Amino acid sequence: MENCIFCKIVNKEIPCYKIYEDDLVLAFLDINPVVSSHVLVIPKKHFENIFDIDEECLKRIIVVAKQIAIKMKESLGVEGVNLYQANGSTAGQTVFHFHLHILPRIPGDDLNFVKWMGKMTKKLEKEEFEEIRDKLAIN
Amino acid sequence: MENCIFCKIVNKEIPCYKIYEDDLVLAFLDINPVVSSHVLVIPKKHFENIFDIDEECLKRIIVVAKQIAIKMKESLGVEGVNLYQANGSTAGQTVFHFHLHILPRIPGDDLNFVKWMGKMTKKLEKEEFEEIRDKLAIN
Repeated sequence: MENCIFCKIVNKEIPCYKIYEDDLVLAFLDINPVVSSHVLVIPKKHFENIFDIDEECLKRIIVVAKQIAIKMKESLGVEGVNLYQANGSTAGQTVFHFHLHILPRIPGDDLNFVKWMGKMTKKLEKEEFEEIRDKLAIN
Repeated sequence: MENCIFCKIVNKEIPCYKIYEDDLVLAFLDINPVVSSHVLVIPKKHFENIFDIDEECLKRIIVVAKQIAIKMKESLGVEGVNLYQANGSTAGQTVFHFHLHILPRIPGDDLNFVKWMGKMTKKLEKEEFEEIRDKLAIN
């Protein structure tokens, strides 16, 4: 897609520090890392986010993410890895080409992820849970 | 696995607000939501995290996550959804049975995810990027 920075990386109009590439996906270092060795996995074809990505690409992306997470453990000696992915500007998405973040974690790196627990002070009532379940149930 | 709370949910020893179930995976509401309608997708078989989960389960989980994200958009009217997943206690994992968080986002919900950008004050040099790339490159 025109003016998409990740499409330009796929098309080699913009260089990247490539980790992995196959027919469907590309993995490279985030040029604005939030932790050292911050990796992005993207589909080569332009999809905006989880809502429109095709399933074949999505499955390949998660399998590659697993391989990279294992490689991080082996090659960087990290013990923890987070996967993170944003869909829609409300969710913090800023580049509108699907991308999955892979974040190796080091004790004391001070990413905010772990601080979310207990964030919601108001606990839901049984009826509220049931109402949400009924709205979301797929089968 | 004995004493695993998610295995107990799979085995119906502990109830859950179920969203979806098939032969490989189960999706249900997080009983300690960090946002309203916080969903977890887990494999029915016990895997600790991304490092040991089998690929068939992993692929099913991400496809189900896509379906749930779309359902959230349709049924809850949200515009944004985050996927989040922790591997290892360093990464904030507290239940050691693989689980993928699906978080519908509402403007002003104040989750910290979006605040990470620009977190790493020290930008990496080209040589540092290249060194990391060489450590992580898979092909």
